Amino acid sequence: MTLPSRVKLVEVAPRDGLQNEAHILPSRTRIEFIDLLSASGLPVIEAGSFVSARRIPQMADSARVLQGVNKNPHCVYPVLTPNRRGMEMAIEAGAREVAIFAAASEAFSQHNIQCSIADSIDRFADVMALAEQHDIRVRGYLSCVLGCPYQGAVALEAVVDVSRRLFDLGCYEISLGDTIGIGTPLQAQRMIAAVSAVAPVAQLAVHFHDTRGQALANILAALQLGVATVDSSVGGIGGCPYAPGASGNVATEKVLYMLDGMGIETGVDLAALLQARRFIRAELGMADSHEFDAVST
Amino acid sequence: MTLPSRVKLVEVAPRDGLQNEAHILPSRTRIEFIDLLSASGLPVIEAGSFVSARRIPQMADSARVLQGVNKNPHCVYPVLTPNRRGMEMAIEAGAREVAIFAAASEAFSQHNIQCSIADSIDRFADVMALAEQHDIRVRGYLSCVLGCPYQGAVALEAVVDVSRRLFDLGCYEISLGDTIGIGTPLQAQRMIAAVSAVAPVAQLAVHFHDTRGQALANILAALQLGVATVDSSVGGIGGCPYAPGASGNVATEKVLYMLDGMGIETGVDLAALLQARRFIRAELGMADSHEFDAVST
Repeated sequence: MTLPSRVKLVEVAPRDGLQNEAHILPSRTRIEFIDLLSASGLPVIEAGSFVSARRIPQMADSARVLQGVNKNPHCVYPVLTPNRRGMEMAIEAGAREVAIFAAASEAFSQHNIQCSIADSIDRFADVMALAEQHDIRVRGYLSCVLGCPYQGAVALEAVVDVSRRLFDLGCYEISLGDTIGIGTPLQAQRMIAAVSAVAPVAQLAVHFHDTRGQALANILAALQLGVATVDSSVGGIGGCPYAPGASGNVATEKVLYMLDGMGIETGVDLAALLQARRFIRAELGMADSHEFDAVST
Repeated sequence: MTLPSRVKLVEVAPRDGLQNEAHILPSRTRIEFIDLLSASGLPVIEAGSFVSARRIPQMADSARVLQGVNKNPHCVYPVLTPNRRGMEMAIEAGAREVAIFAAASEAFSQHNIQCSIADSIDRFADVMALAEQHDIRVRGYLSCVLGCPYQGAVALEAVVDVSRRLFDLGCYEISLGDTIGIGTPLQAQRMIAAVSAVAPVAQLAVHFHDTRGQALANILAALQLGVATVDSSVGGIGGCPYAPGASGNVATEKVLYMLDGMGIETGVDLAALLQARRFIRAELGMADSHEFDAVST
């Protein structure tokens, strides 16, 4: 039980969140959203994805978004770069940090990116070379760390093995994703303990989906092992419910409320974060709610 | 960190849940609901409340409900008895266990039951005397243990003091309620540790509301202190959102899913529990969801 005194919140709503919403928002709306988020004190905000606009229209114009945001010097704005072409575009748009992704499940890798895990790692060599050349940090996402929508169970060995390969490639941090929100606290702790064998816990992030309401308990369990980086999505954006592999990012405000209550520093202001939530939920045509507003009364 | 190997789930949907829903269900529907719940293996199901049908029409005919349910020998069916009159009716209806309630907050006590905490405890003397006479077990509810919608902060000393008074009265178990879902895990642990000074943890239950999404993390934190009795409401029934003092019972299926995943025994079958959820949500005109169904695929 070694709770961190400070946690780094990685806000994923503008990318992982919005790309899973049916609504397609123009770049100026996404810029305004990101600026509201950075005003809350968030240290990391995923700003976009350099992928095919045909496949993921929600992320079209990510270059314009990245260039348009009001760069907060205390915040970094990583973008997803699945391949050399995406990486070149990200560099041109001025990215200082990028993210790549692999799966711990062969079935998910085949289904999601149409290649084996090994091939997906090989393909990132180009991205990593360009990153090194341009002094750009690379974050690695690892999906299906507690289960897979296609193959079911995922062996701990696979999670550890692909984590190691991502670190060997040069990632500075791995975000361990329970992509389908299937895990519970002891499973999460076992998984984190296993991955800790190949990397210091300071290089591990957790990325829990709240599909079955387990995310916050799992985050608490991860904090208790010393994990100090947590991915989340304000307003639970991206929670198109129950679609395999893409459901229910845990809401940043829930995580922040817990951390605030536990005396764990984040540098993020809840009231400012709620403004960003209100804005994006309105833009997506979602009803807002006021359960966190009431806290200040 | 002493996780219990077995947890007793106290299902509160048929009372605490339904009394907070606008929809008023007839006794035969509540009987069918309770029978579905007991078929899932739940060990304790709150069956009703002997209060004024004018004040709480949702609980009218609680005698008929209690008498009508198919008594499962492995299950107890406590009913709420706020006073002597209610207790007499409960005895007549064959209750084997009843529940009384007090608040840890003076403001909440005044607002909710129009008397001081001390007076509320005094008024239960009649109920306790009848209970002893008829060999009926009495459970105590204590509300506002982590905060109050009217006075804000609640001192730990008050929580401990009222807990002791309820045990002194003769309650065999106290359910510690975060009535407004305001607490976070370390606050929950501090509160439980404090109350443990006046009673063994085996006599403590936790009753968390999920208003701000904290319930499951708080339950995990309570389990880690050895708490082995958890109140919850299937389908999150009773969650009329954000009304002070009456919002957001944690959903039993979320709690059970976590406990199952942690290898903690409950004797409750998730699939059978989901049948009860489907039934009651349909009766209340609520949409059902399928996030837990997917687990079995």
